[in-house]
Amino acid sequence: MFDTAELDRKVSKEDYAEKAPPLRQQLLETQTALRKAPFPVIVLFGGVDGAGKSETINLLHEWLDPRGLIARAYGTPTEETAQRPTFWRYWRDLPAFGRIGFFLSAWYSDPILNRVYNKTSDAEFDEELDQILNFEKALTDDGVLIVKFWMHLGRDAQKERFQQLEEDPLTSWRVKEKDWENWEKFDDFTEASERAITKTSRGQSPWHIVEGADERYRTLSVAGTLLERIRRHIQQAMPSGGEAKAAKVETEAISDLSYNPTPGVTILSQLDMTLSLAKAEYAERLEELQGRLNLLSRQAQDAGISTVIAFEGWDAAGKGGAIRRIIPGLDSRLSQVIPIMAPTAEEFSYHYLWRFWRHIPLAGRVTIFDRSWYGRVLVERVEGFATEDEWRRAYAEINDFEAQLVSNRTVVCKFWMNITKEEQGQRFERRKQLPHKKWKLTEEDWRNREKWDAYEAAVNEMVERTSTYRARWTLVEANDKRYARIKVLETICDGLEKELAKETT
Amino acid sequence: MFDTAELDRKVSKEDYAEKAPPLRQQLLETQTALRKAPFPVIVLFGGVDGAGKSETINLLHEWLDPRGLIARAYGTPTEETAQRPTFWRYWRDLPAFGRIGFFLSAWYSDPILNRVYNKTSDAEFDEELDQILNFEKALTDDGVLIVKFWMHLGRDAQKERFQQLEEDPLTSWRVKEKDWENWEKFDDFTEASERAITKTSRGQSPWHIVEGADERYRTLSVAGTLLERIRRHIQQAMPSGGEAKAAKVETEAISDLSYNPTPGVTILSQLDMTLSLAKAEYAERLEELQGRLNLLSRQAQDAGISTVIAFEGWDAAGKGGAIRRIIPGLDSRLSQVIPIMAPTAEEFSYHYLWRFWRHIPLAGRVTIFDRSWYGRVLVERVEGFATEDEWRRAYAEINDFEAQLVSNRTVVCKFWMNITKEEQGQRFERRKQLPHKKWKLTEEDWRNREKWDAYEAAVNEMVERTSTYRARWTLVEANDKRYARIKVLETICDGLEKELAKETT
Repeated sequence: MFDTAELDRKVSKEDYAEKAPPLRQQLLETQTALRKAPFPVIVLFGGVDGAGKSETINLLHEWLDPRGLIARAYGTPTEETAQRPTFWRYWRDLPAFGRIGFFLSAWYSDPILNRVYNKTSDAEFDEELDQILNFEKALTDDGVLIVKFWMHLGRDAQKERFQQLEEDPLTSWRVKEKDWENWEKFDDFTEASERAITKTSRGQSPWHIVEGADERYRTLSVAGTLLERIRRHIQQAMPSGGEAKAAKVETEAISDLSYNPTPGVTILSQLDMTLSLAKAEYAERLEELQGRLNLLSRQAQDAGISTVIAFEGWDAAGKGGAIRRIIPGLDSRLSQVIPIMAPTAEEFSYHYLWRFWRHIPLAGRVTIFDRSWYGRVLVERVEGFATEDEWRRAYAEINDFEAQLVSNRTVVCKFWMNITKEEQGQRFERRKQLPHKKWKLTEEDWRNREKWDAYEAAVNEMVERTSTYRARWTLVEANDKRYARIKVLETICDGLEKELAKETT
Repeated sequence: MFDTAELDRKVSKEDYAEKAPPLRQQLLETQTALRKAPFPVIVLFGGVDGAGKSETINLLHEWLDPRGLIARAYGTPTEETAQRPTFWRYWRDLPAFGRIGFFLSAWYSDPILNRVYNKTSDAEFDEELDQILNFEKALTDDGVLIVKFWMHLGRDAQKERFQQLEEDPLTSWRVKEKDWENWEKFDDFTEASERAITKTSRGQSPWHIVEGADERYRTLSVAGTLLERIRRHIQQAMPSGGEAKAAKVETEAISDLSYNPTPGVTILSQLDMTLSLAKAEYAERLEELQGRLNLLSRQAQDAGISTVIAFEGWDAAGKGGAIRRIIPGLDSRLSQVIPIMAPTAEEFSYHYLWRFWRHIPLAGRVTIFDRSWYGRVLVERVEGFATEDEWRRAYAEINDFEAQLVSNRTVVCKFWMNITKEEQGQRFERRKQLPHKKWKLTEEDWRNREKWDAYEAAVNEMVERTSTYRARWTLVEANDKRYARIKVLETICDGLEKELAKETT
C-alpha cells in the first residue's frame, strides 16, 4: 500500500514557483465560496512522524484566511475529556458550516498506537476502526466533507529526517525519545496503518496517501487534492439547479482521486528494468528453486496450507513462460492452472468474484490463475466494461476476498509481470515472424498497446489500493525472462516458507 | 428490539382466507417478472428455533414456481467446505439472475452460536459480523436483492412450541436435546441476536423482524414483505425509462419497510393503560424511592458512573412532573436538566447529534433530557423536518451514540410516557380551564394530536430499532400519574443498582 508513496517523487524549485501561486489563489477563492455552504470541511492528517503533518497545517494557515479555520491536535485526554466517551471531544470540536477544521491524527492516533504496542488485539483494533467508520459515516451522511491525508515516509527516510532535526539546535527538541522508540517499531506501524487505511477508506471518506519526503511535492499534492475535493463538494451540495441527489451518487465513486504533481512518475516507472540474469546462473538457480518448491509444497500439503497464485501483466510479458517454470515444482495431482478469459454467459449472471471463488483450492492444494480477479480494475476499468462505481468498489471487495483466503491459511502470491513498451514492441515483432507464435498475437494486443498510459495508471492505483499487509503485490522486472522467472519462483518459495514457519512456532 | 415481536399478533382464519389467495397470485406474477431481471433474490431466514423458518420456506415453495427457486440449509461443514474460507460455500450456492434462493440461518448461524457458547469474544463476534456486512454489501452493490427475515418467538412461546412438537409423535423427532440446551440460554441468544441485527441492518440489507407465534400472521407478514421488496427492486433495476440511479438512492432509505398484516396493533396498543396507584401507597413508595435514588446516585458518583435519562412522550403525558419527582433524589450540584427545543441557529449548523454530545455529563454526574435526540425519528419524521433518508439512518446513529455512552460506564434510561388519546383530550381541556396551566397548551399541541396515528407508528418503529441490549426503552403507562412516576423512579434505581453491581464483581 505504501509502495506507491516511496517513489522518491520530487518537485523542483522552478516547478513549484510556477504551480504554487495559482493553487494558493484558487484555494483562497474556494474558501470564500465555502463560507456560504451548508456543510463544514474536516481535513485530517495522519501518518508517519516527520512526514510533514504539522508543517502542512501551518502552511495552509498561511495560504488561507485563518478566520475560517480551526486546528486541533490532541494530547493525553484532560480530566474533562477522559471522563466522557472517546468521541466526545471530537464531536465538541467539529467545525460549523462553512468552516475548515484541521485535525492532527485525532481519532486515529490511539487505536493505531495501542495496536502497535500490543495493548489491543487485532479484533479489538478492528472494533475501534469500526467505531471510526460509524463516526465518519454519520458526518458524511449529514453532508460533511472529510478529506484524509496519510503522510508517508519510508523507514530510511524517517530516520534521516529525525537525524536532520536533531542536528539543528533549533529543531532538535522536536525529536523525542518516544519518536525513536516508535521508529524501532516501523514495521508494526506499517502493518497497523495499512489495516487502518484499508478498513476506513470506505465510502465517502477515503484516504489520500501522500509521499512526504519532499516538502514541495507534498505541499502541492495536499493543496491540489484539497482544492479539488472542496470544489467538487460545493458543486454537489449547491448545484446551480440540477439534480443534487443524482450528483451525490457519482461522488462516492470518484472521491478518492488525489492530485498528483508529478503525473509521469508511477510505481512502474521506478522499476529497474535492466535487471537480468546470465544463462548459466539461471539454469543453476532454476533447478535449485524447483527442488525447493517441490519440498515446500509437500510440506504445505501436509500442513493443509493452500496456495493461490495470480498472474497479471502486459501482453507478451511472459506470464505463460513463468507459469511453465512453476509447474515442474508441483505435484500435478494437487495443482491446477486456471486461465481467465472473458466471462461466459453463465458466469456473467453472477457476481464477478463468483467464478474465482469456484476455483479456490482445497486445503494443501495450489491454484494458479493466469489473469485473475484484478481484471476488474485493469482491463474492465480501462475498456469501460465496468462502471467507475463498480471498479472503484472492487478494491475493497478484492481486499476482503484475499483476506478471507489468508485467514484460511492460504499463501497468496500476486505478480505483475512488467516489461517496457519498447520490449513489448520487439516481442510483438518477433512473434509476427515466428509461425508457431504468430497465433498468440491478436488485433486486441495492438489495441491494448495504444492504451499503455491508461493501463499504467490503473496498475499504479491497483498496487496502491490492494498491496496490503495480508497480500502484497510482487512487481516483476520482466524485460529479461530469466530474471523474471527466478524472481517469481523465489517469491513463491519464500511465501510458503514464511507460512510454514508460522505453523511450527 | 424484540419487544415489538411479542405483541401476540394473530390473523383470524377468515382474515387469512381473504388475504392469502391474492397475495399468492401476486407473488407468482412477480416471480414471472423476476425471471427476466438482471439480478437474483436472496431470502434469508434467521431467528429462534420453532418460530417457523422451515415451515415458511416450505410454504413459499408451494406458492411459487419451484423451478425458479433454490433452498439451502447448512449443517456442519463437509470436508470439502471445511477446507475453504467460511464464505466459499455461500458464494458457490448463490442463485443466478432471475432466481430466488432461500437460505436457512446460513452465514449468521455460527457467529451467533459461537458467541452464545462463549467460543468468541464480543470483539471477535463483531469482526465476524463485519465480514457478513462486507459479504452482503458486495452482493447488494452488485444489484442483488437481499431480504432478511428474523423469525421471533418469546421465551415462553418457544417453550410452549417445543412441548407441542414433543407431544405429537409425528413431530417429536424435531426437538433435540440441543434445542432445550439452547433454550436455557435464551437471554444470551437474545443479546447476541440483537447485536447481530443491529450491526447488520445497515444499508440495503436490513432485517425484517417477524413475530413467529401465529402461523397465519407470520405467513402473511413474510409473503407481503417479500412481494413488496421484489416488486420495488424490479422497478428500480428495470425502470420503464426513468433515472435508475436517482431511484437507487431512494431505496436505501425505504427498504426496511415491512408488511404488517395487523396494522392496528402496535407496541403502545398492547400496554395496560388502566394501571394505577392509590394515593397512600404512592406517597410511601415515592419517599422510599427518592431515598434509594439518593443513596445510589452517591455511590455512582464515587464509582464514576454517569447517568443519562431521556424523556419522550405524548404532549401532556407528564414528563415534567416525572422529572420533578427525580430531582429531589439527586444532588443538585451534580445533575442538570436539559430541555430540548427546536434547534437554535448555531445548533442547526452542526450535525443534529452535536447538541446532545455537548451535554454529556462528566463521570459520576447525571443529565436529564426533557425530550431528546429521538426527536429526529419522532417529530422531525412526522412533520417532515428530516428527510426519510435522514431519519432512517438516525436509528443506527443513535444506537452508536448510546453504545458509546454505555461502554463509557453510563447508565442510559429512556422513557416513553404513554397516555391514551382520550386521556390527553381530558388533560388538554383541564389545562384550558386552569389559568396557571393555560400557557402550556399551544396550537401546536392540537396539531400534533391530529397526527396521533402517524406518531404511534413512529414510536413503534423507534422502539423496534433502538431498544437494544445496551439501552432499552421503558414504556410507561402514564394515564395515572402516580403509577407513572413510581415506575420511572424504580427503573432509574434498578439501572443504577445493576451498573453498580458490575462494579463490585
